[in-house]
Amino acid sequence: MSDTGARRRGRGGGGAARRAERTAVRIETARYIERNIPNFEILTEEALEIIEANAETVLAEVGVNFVNNPAALERWREAGADVEGERVRIPRGLARQLCATAPQSFTQHARNPEKNVVIGGKGLVFAPVYGPPFVRDATGGRRYATMEDFRTFVKLGYMSKWLHHSGGTVCEPTDLPVNKRHLDMLLAHMTLSDKPFMGSVTEPSRAQDSVEMCEVLFGRDFVQQNTVMTSLININSPLTFDDVMMGALEVYAKNNQACIVSPFIVGGAMAPVSVAGTLTQVLAEVLAGIAYSQLVRPGAPVIFGAFVTSIDMNSGAPTFGTPEASHILYGAGQLARRMNLPFRSGGSLCGSKLPDAQAAYETANTLNTALMGGVNFMLHACGWLEGGLVSSFEKFVMDADQLGALHKLAEGIAVDENAQAMDAIREVGPGGHYLGCAHTQANFKSAFWRSELLDYKPFETWDEAGARDTQMLATDRVAKLLETYQQPQLDPAIAEALDAYVAEKKAAMPDAFM
Amino acid sequence: MSDTGARRRGRGGGGAARRAERTAVRIETARYIERNIPNFEILTEEALEIIEANAETVLAEVGVNFVNNPAALERWREAGADVEGERVRIPRGLARQLCATAPQSFTQHARNPEKNVVIGGKGLVFAPVYGPPFVRDATGGRRYATMEDFRTFVKLGYMSKWLHHSGGTVCEPTDLPVNKRHLDMLLAHMTLSDKPFMGSVTEPSRAQDSVEMCEVLFGRDFVQQNTVMTSLININSPLTFDDVMMGALEVYAKNNQACIVSPFIVGGAMAPVSVAGTLTQVLAEVLAGIAYSQLVRPGAPVIFGAFVTSIDMNSGAPTFGTPEASHILYGAGQLARRMNLPFRSGGSLCGSKLPDAQAAYETANTLNTALMGGVNFMLHACGWLEGGLVSSFEKFVMDADQLGALHKLAEGIAVDENAQAMDAIREVGPGGHYLGCAHTQANFKSAFWRSELLDYKPFETWDEAGARDTQMLATDRVAKLLETYQQPQLDPAIAEALDAYVAEKKAAMPDAFM
Repeated sequence: MSDTGARRRGRGGGGAARRAERTAVRIETARYIERNIPNFEILTEEALEIIEANAETVLAEVGVNFVNNPAALERWREAGADVEGERVRIPRGLARQLCATAPQSFTQHARNPEKNVVIGGKGLVFAPVYGPPFVRDATGGRRYATMEDFRTFVKLGYMSKWLHHSGGTVCEPTDLPVNKRHLDMLLAHMTLSDKPFMGSVTEPSRAQDSVEMCEVLFGRDFVQQNTVMTSLININSPLTFDDVMMGALEVYAKNNQACIVSPFIVGGAMAPVSVAGTLTQVLAEVLAGIAYSQLVRPGAPVIFGAFVTSIDMNSGAPTFGTPEASHILYGAGQLARRMNLPFRSGGSLCGSKLPDAQAAYETANTLNTALMGGVNFMLHACGWLEGGLVSSFEKFVMDADQLGALHKLAEGIAVDENAQAMDAIREVGPGGHYLGCAHTQANFKSAFWRSELLDYKPFETWDEAGARDTQMLATDRVAKLLETYQQPQLDPAIAEALDAYVAEKKAAMPDAFM
Repeated sequence: MSDTGARRRGRGGGGAARRAERTAVRIETARYIERNIPNFEILTEEALEIIEANAETVLAEVGVNFVNNPAALERWREAGADVEGERVRIPRGLARQLCATAPQSFTQHARNPEKNVVIGGKGLVFAPVYGPPFVRDATGGRRYATMEDFRTFVKLGYMSKWLHHSGGTVCEPTDLPVNKRHLDMLLAHMTLSDKPFMGSVTEPSRAQDSVEMCEVLFGRDFVQQNTVMTSLININSPLTFDDVMMGALEVYAKNNQACIVSPFIVGGAMAPVSVAGTLTQVLAEVLAGIAYSQLVRPGAPVIFGAFVTSIDMNSGAPTFGTPEASHILYGAGQLARRMNLPFRSGGSLCGSKLPDAQAAYETANTLNTALMGGVNFMLHACGWLEGGLVSSFEKFVMDADQLGALHKLAEGIAVDENAQAMDAIREVGPGGHYLGCAHTQANFKSAFWRSELLDYKPFETWDEAGARDTQMLATDRVAKLLETYQQPQLDPAIAEALDAYVAEKKAAMPDAFM
């Protein structure tokens, strides 16, 4: 990729940045994770080969549908696929061959270059919950999300040390017209945070607006030469690529912007009830989708996505944090690595209605699996509740705290002389105590990950302070983060130009609510 | 080991068993886990060799203390160690060489042979929380534990499908004299459950009582030839072996009963503040402890234990479910496997005062790590709360439910023809739906692990039913399990003999409360 490495932008890095440095409270953001631990490889070589061969069979014999998209069918025909109506049958090996031009990793630039992220390789980037139409907090309960809620989540994301990415639709601002809300959402990410963000995918024209707003923010040349958005392109599983999502992908790929090509599967409904069958379909779908992105623009940055949940066969409800979901994540990670592609999966997924123990078990199961399974881009890394129907303020900060633990876990185990601590063992000896020894004094500050939320107080102290559970502690933390929030500096000329772009676009169309 | 495989016992397997089969409600208990997934290997060969070499240095140069135990010092002297006062310095290689006679795995027999467990190899056995002086439930809050609570936990353990083992001190019955409570605890495990259990370690004489009660239950010859108890021997870290624990170990080893030899470490206090340093000390301590067990009786079954938590350096409180604890568990598992020994670690460990989200995050972090880290015997697998001060009724059933997910995860991914599901993918095709297809119909019953506790209902249904959180669901489940509890059948002659043994022992000593 041409866009990795430090590259100075024409504007925004000069006077404004220096002014920012003088006046702003510094918000700490951790660098994205670079794993120093192995990936967990659950499938044998033989199993992987079976699944890969079956995926090729699916593409060649069953094929995929590209719906309402004559241009896509034409691209496939030219590439050598067998096109019959909207059905595209892809000869064995062709899709994988086309995928080979996709980069192994890419840099997504943020307007604050310190917050650029590398997506792929040993990296792991955390982005918040995406998509819920509802929000919940302890005081107000569950209600439809508004643009004000959206802004609050963007602020929380900006203030969260372990979150590397501002995300996309952190909640759906249902109080705004459907055809205009993307403008306000992007404006919020661009002005209330300086972390990288995602573009709109609900219409190709809105993807185009996203690109144009980025051109205002970053400069036109910069956008054409660098990736400044990573957007979520869901595949309509099984094996269907609709024109809206593909239209958005086409816009992003043409503009060198990244797409997550992601089957969205409730196992047993949109894919076979078995893990190996689901992995076969996931691979077939991703092969076709990423191959198509490379037909649009060879070298366009993409991510191998897999959003797969299991299902409660009694109620039909999707279930999260289950062992089958872990199996699929581990297997899909291996398949992605064998394609040399960045991998997206995982998140703070849970089915619970409340940020309670169920939510936390399910979330922790998924977060741990995602780290061990080699995920490179984790959407929904915090704040997800109720099967994705709800963005929870409390769960946002609860999950974001746990992401800190994953940072530490990913560092692996040091075995240098200091870590070996032989002098300490000699100093303390049998029956002694390490708290005061020289090695402990020299190392204790960095030795242990420390939660900024969870309670470690003695029972009596905790009881006297109100015997608060995790949700109540989280309510406090949300308030504290918002109280100390300071908007990151932005060149006033750029802020004005963004406002003008949004105003002009809004004025040009009537409101639509469907 | 001579005690593996099916062996008929002289009594209890005849008429009584047949009568039991006719009259009792069948309580389902899952077989212990046999992993079909790889272990997670976090340390490189080089790192492992450094830690192993350092542990030998610790034993040879710093040494360990065997306190108030002249017989132990004599055993060490005879084995070739350098004994100076109570300090035992063990020449390089000697401890590891002595450990070689310990079995790689062993069968612990239950009075119901269907519930025998194999500890070691690819196995994973779940036993409940051990040791808390308090109990908590949603209605009664936190209070001192009683013998009645103890019995309730044994019943819950018996009713829990995914729990393989009845455990030991599921809570401390503080209403009974310290010197007699072990008798009632053992009687409860022997009569209210038919799963395997643990013996007393609080005095060598109580270990002896445990052996004698087992001789009543299983028959004297059977006990001498087979392992019927696995008991917990904590090392007084750093590097100290006290006479009470070692006295109990001596009793058990002499009688061919299993011991977990387990450093009990709050990192930064009882071991160096670094992971590699802690692993070095853990290995040194386990090498010395297990070597000692083999000096007492070569071939005595043992488990490499590691109970290691991190510490909140501000308050000094132990912390659970942290990344450092995971690092240590993964590393200790590798060290245990290189010694060809069964490995004990993990559990439902958490610092939270309530069975809330904190408790669940911390617990899930540890449970997942323990499965991936190759744990063979997991004490505290359910019910642990507040850093081990509290046994929680609700958390017992919440955690026990999650243990079911670990069973499924450990099965790995099938890739046989049925699992490949190619016919299903062909049948459904692009845009179709899998719920009704032949493959789904044939497989859905076993396809997905299903929680017996967590809520998957639609929001409105859940809201109308009282909007209950996980703890409230668990309160119901506890009540339901206890309502349907039926005591497993036991030969009345054995039951009577056990009662007589306990009565006689109690009559022979005055009550002691310290």
